[in-house]
Amino acid sequence: MFKGIFTPIVTPFDEKEQIDYQKLQANLVKLGKSSLAGLVVLGSNGEFSYLMEREKLDVCTFVLKEKPEHQKIIVGASHESLYQTKKFIEKIQPFEPAALLILPPHYYKGSMTEEALYQYFFDVAEFSPIPIMLYNMPGNTGINMPASLVIKLSHHPNIVGIKDTAGNIVQLSQIIWGTGNDFSVFAGSASYLLPSLTVGAKGATLALGNVMADECCRIQQLVDAGEFIKAREQQLKLIRINTLVTSGIGVPALKYAMTLMGYQGGNPRKPMQPLTESQKELVKNALLEAGAIA
Amino acid sequence: MFKGIFTPIVTPFDEKEQIDYQKLQANLVKLGKSSLAGLVVLGSNGEFSYLMEREKLDVCTFVLKEKPEHQKIIVGASHESLYQTKKFIEKIQPFEPAALLILPPHYYKGSMTEEALYQYFFDVAEFSPIPIMLYNMPGNTGINMPASLVIKLSHHPNIVGIKDTAGNIVQLSQIIWGTGNDFSVFAGSASYLLPSLTVGAKGATLALGNVMADECCRIQQLVDAGEFIKAREQQLKLIRINTLVTSGIGVPALKYAMTLMGYQGGNPRKPMQPLTESQKELVKNALLEAGAIA
Amino acid sequence: MFKGIFTPIVTPFDEKEQIDYQKLQANLVKLGKSSLAGLVVLGSNGEFSYLMEREKLDVCTFVLKEKPEHQKIIVGASHESLYQTKKFIEKIQPFEPAALLILPPHYYKGSMTEEALYQYFFDVAEFSPIPIMLYNMPGNTGINMPASLVIKLSHHPNIVGIKDTAGNIVQLSQIIWGTGNDFSVFAGSASYLLPSLTVGAKGATLALGNVMADECCRIQQLVDAGEFIKAREQQLKLIRINTLVTSGIGVPALKYAMTLMGYQGGNPRKPMQPLTESQKELVKNALLEAGAIA
Amino acid sequence: MFKGIFTPIVTPFDEKEQIDYQKLQANLVKLGKSSLAGLVVLGSNGEFSYLMEREKLDVCTFVLKEKPEHQKIIVGASHESLYQTKKFIEKIQPFEPAALLILPPHYYKGSMTEEALYQYFFDVAEFSPIPIMLYNMPGNTGINMPASLVIKLSHHPNIVGIKDTAGNIVQLSQIIWGTGNDFSVFAGSASYLLPSLTVGAKGATLALGNVMADECCRIQQLVDAGEFIKAREQQLKLIRINTLVTSGIGVPALKYAMTLMGYQGGNPRKPMQPLTESQKELVKNALLEAGAIA
Repeated sequence: MFKGIFTPIVTPFDEKEQIDYQKLQANLVKLGKSSLAGLVVLGSNGEFSYLMEREKLDVCTFVLKEKPEHQKIIVGASHESLYQTKKFIEKIQPFEPAALLILPPHYYKGSMTEEALYQYFFDVAEFSPIPIMLYNMPGNTGINMPASLVIKLSHHPNIVGIKDTAGNIVQLSQIIWGTGNDFSVFAGSASYLLPSLTVGAKGATLALGNVMADECCRIQQLVDAGEFIKAREQQLKLIRINTLVTSGIGVPALKYAMTLMGYQGGNPRKPMQPLTESQKELVKNALLEAGAIA
Repeated sequence: MFKGIFTPIVTPFDEKEQIDYQKLQANLVKLGKSSLAGLVVLGSNGEFSYLMEREKLDVCTFVLKEKPEHQKIIVGASHESLYQTKKFIEKIQPFEPAALLILPPHYYKGSMTEEALYQYFFDVAEFSPIPIMLYNMPGNTGINMPASLVIKLSHHPNIVGIKDTAGNIVQLSQIIWGTGNDFSVFAGSASYLLPSLTVGAKGATLALGNVMADECCRIQQLVDAGEFIKAREQQLKLIRINTLVTSGIGVPALKYAMTLMGYQGGNPRKPMQPLTESQKELVKNALLEAGAIA
Repeated sequence: MFKGIFTPIVTPFDEKEQIDYQKLQANLVKLGKSSLAGLVVLGSNGEFSYLMEREKLDVCTFVLKEKPEHQKIIVGASHESLYQTKKFIEKIQPFEPAALLILPPHYYKGSMTEEALYQYFFDVAEFSPIPIMLYNMPGNTGINMPASLVIKLSHHPNIVGIKDTAGNIVQLSQIIWGTGNDFSVFAGSASYLLPSLTVGAKGATLALGNVMADECCRIQQLVDAGEFIKAREQQLKLIRINTLVTSGIGVPALKYAMTLMGYQGGNPRKPMQPLTESQKELVKNALLEAGAIA
Repeated sequence: MFKGIFTPIVTPFDEKEQIDYQKLQANLVKLGKSSLAGLVVLGSNGEFSYLMEREKLDVCTFVLKEKPEHQKIIVGASHESLYQTKKFIEKIQPFEPAALLILPPHYYKGSMTEEALYQYFFDVAEFSPIPIMLYNMPGNTGINMPASLVIKLSHHPNIVGIKDTAGNIVQLSQIIWGTGNDFSVFAGSASYLLPSLTVGAKGATLALGNVMADECCRIQQLVDAGEFIKAREQQLKLIRINTLVTSGIGVPALKYAMTLMGYQGGNPRKPMQPLTESQKELVKNALLEAGAIA
């Protein structure tokens, strides 16, 4: 069962927009010293959709080989067609990721009925030797996976959890209410980590984990200790910086915040734009406010 | 300061769609025996937008006169224009409601900029001898009041709180983080009552309070006692019935659930439709599941 | 049958936000000299939702008495409940408007199923001695009336047409294709007047008719004469000014443009805001570009 | 300059979901006998997002070699990152497509500001030896390219047109009004072909062209001949079948309609679902109604 705080790692690039494996390695080492339970490679913050097929495999296998010993690695395996997803799983499975995190296909929105999505995840779960974690991310995909669909899919033994980035605490509660205790419901953003844990989430996968890993983990530690009031202050102070690095500016802000915190950030691939000076100020001030830098 | 659980009471009608004051009276008596901190009259569940001007005043003054002694009465005072809002306040203020609950005007969506909404609520707050509670209800109005606007408005001494029915726990957290301890942030639906209280909400205004008042109040009592784990089970079991009586079917389901619980429900005014038999079954089963009926 | 170009007249106010009947009269006289087929009173541009019940009746009866002889008057009769709508119809029917323009009730969005809307308009059509024109305005109401619903309603003999302000030319085409030749499909904005007429619309109700009545009518005259290419240039040059006075800034821009064209405009009621200086420049320049002022 | 009716061809698969080049060839031969001005390969109806990198290149080069002599071939070259787009252009340019049709990157919606999109298309246009046609498809991407952005991009000499599938005739009109006569504005769906041509579109790229090529071309022929009234009937009768094969059911319906018309359709890759029997009936009846089959 998956439990605890994970972070979706970024993919660092050099000046020619080539993947910089030295920087990636440095981040892995630093993240390995945190309290994080695991890492997600090829998630949204890893710019998976900006990489060539070859690069995706290379990044994955690199991380799976170089990973911190005690941390689990979940691999993003989102593709539009079942055909592509199967091809990817065939190639990645020898490297034994702990799970695959998979978005609903979403380009042909009109055709992606609840039935089509059910069939897709069912087919993937049947095919894959690796456990599947659903990935609901309507902000990027334009498709929400309703609680009813998630609950139905949770009955498949190879579908072991969901990262729900919808930010809808009622839907998250409905999923928890409707799934068994061995199904891992994960919050998808630090902005609602405490509320999610309060209603019974098992953990979370948080972009902010790249920047303030132990601060995020501390919320779950406080909840586990029954210290909800202390957890509240911790939760509230993370919201502004978290908004900037997720729905606000997104990956470019996340990478810049990482640089400020001693990680290897740098710029995302284009068309994502480098931060302007005033955006950099916003990020700096939010880190100051959160007590991450002085 | 406003604190605790309120419920927005319904407006019962007779068979000719006339307001039935006897039934209203019966509901007031029964609600008066609950742990509710107060009632809202002319809220969304009161079908305020379905009433004639004269009827609105009559219902308000009736409730303000017949109210349970220990409960506060908040009056819905939402109108599209400042002119209408002022006229209403002039007429209702002699009856001394505890506060006025006011939606952002929303028909001319393109013109309702953040600046226009700020100016509207500022003007109302200056004019009104009665404290103002903001009412954010994007599901019905199509307009969301962002945290930045709410925080700015909270600086006016006559704006004392907000009922936020957006269901966005991050936005609710941002408002709590950005406003003072004397500003009452209220959850707007029982579906996210526990998460809201966990991040610091002072109370809530809940449709479900009409049906299961003490069950709702119990969540806040458990939170006040630091019993978050016990509160979780209570929270999760209320979600299905709450969804039916709010975003699911809405007022017709709420009124039917009230009937099942011994209150005076009945049908809403048209064009809201009476429940079909299968909808009635849904409501009954949800009440059974929540342990409200046997 | 309704045919030709109508305009939804504005409601002029004095400095105390009281209705200014002298200004209204002046506008009626000036509009009476145009080629417009008729006027709509209490439409969205008439700020119907900003008026008290008494004021609505007064404005209507004034316009019905003072109307230019050869122009038809359609009265906006939109309310949230059937009860309110009937009360209004009872009071206005002695003054013999040509038709009633009625929005779908929209506050309780979750309850306004296609069935509920059908029932509402059916009930209104049965009750009303005056013909009904449907009014689809999703930008303001948040509810779209799909072609299937409109076609079904068109079978009632007392439902004689629709003003469709959705701006969806495919939906408009579907409605034309699915309704009889005696059902008047009207475009709801000058921005797509020519495309609407091309696919078979009988006319239009246009805010821009308040500002450039004959320029709008000319498009229909050219289409009737088979001069589509000449109509195109006329259509394209009206788009920028039309966008400003409709979806762009809305009623405040419309009223200011009217002032520039010699009509009685002035400010709308609050919370709609008076134009800033830079917004005034935008409106002036758009009128210049459209050749309306020199 | 691009002018006339194009169709985005489908990618036929065999029973193992492998690309079936014989069927593709058969379709090319049959389409080559129509009045179509050209074909688009790797468009949305070509399931471009369901193909492996290798397959995309193979399909493109096959079509570019086997294409009907008199028809232009536009190649879909949409990718999320500039890096991927450049890699693709490098490989496809030796085969000399007439133009590249490119969507705005859309996965990181929050980061895709108007500025980021401008920069992306500018960079692509600078890099590419082949002319660029913009592809606005908000129904699938969740991002609309506003007229202001399109007009600004039209000033680049290597950006030669747009396929606008937004279905917003006002936006299309604004783009025509704001761009030069050498910029080709194309309607993106047969449902609004006549209105688009009426306001000045140069042509269209239509899924329905795969099914009823000459019927679509006839609308433009009638418009060119000034026969707008005849064009109207033709336009209206195509709407129902067109809705089914585009926004209604989509690619599975398109492929089934092709089969009924003697083309090689078959099933799309999963997760798109084969048609149910009742969906097949819908498609058949719509073709009957449109007079395509008897």
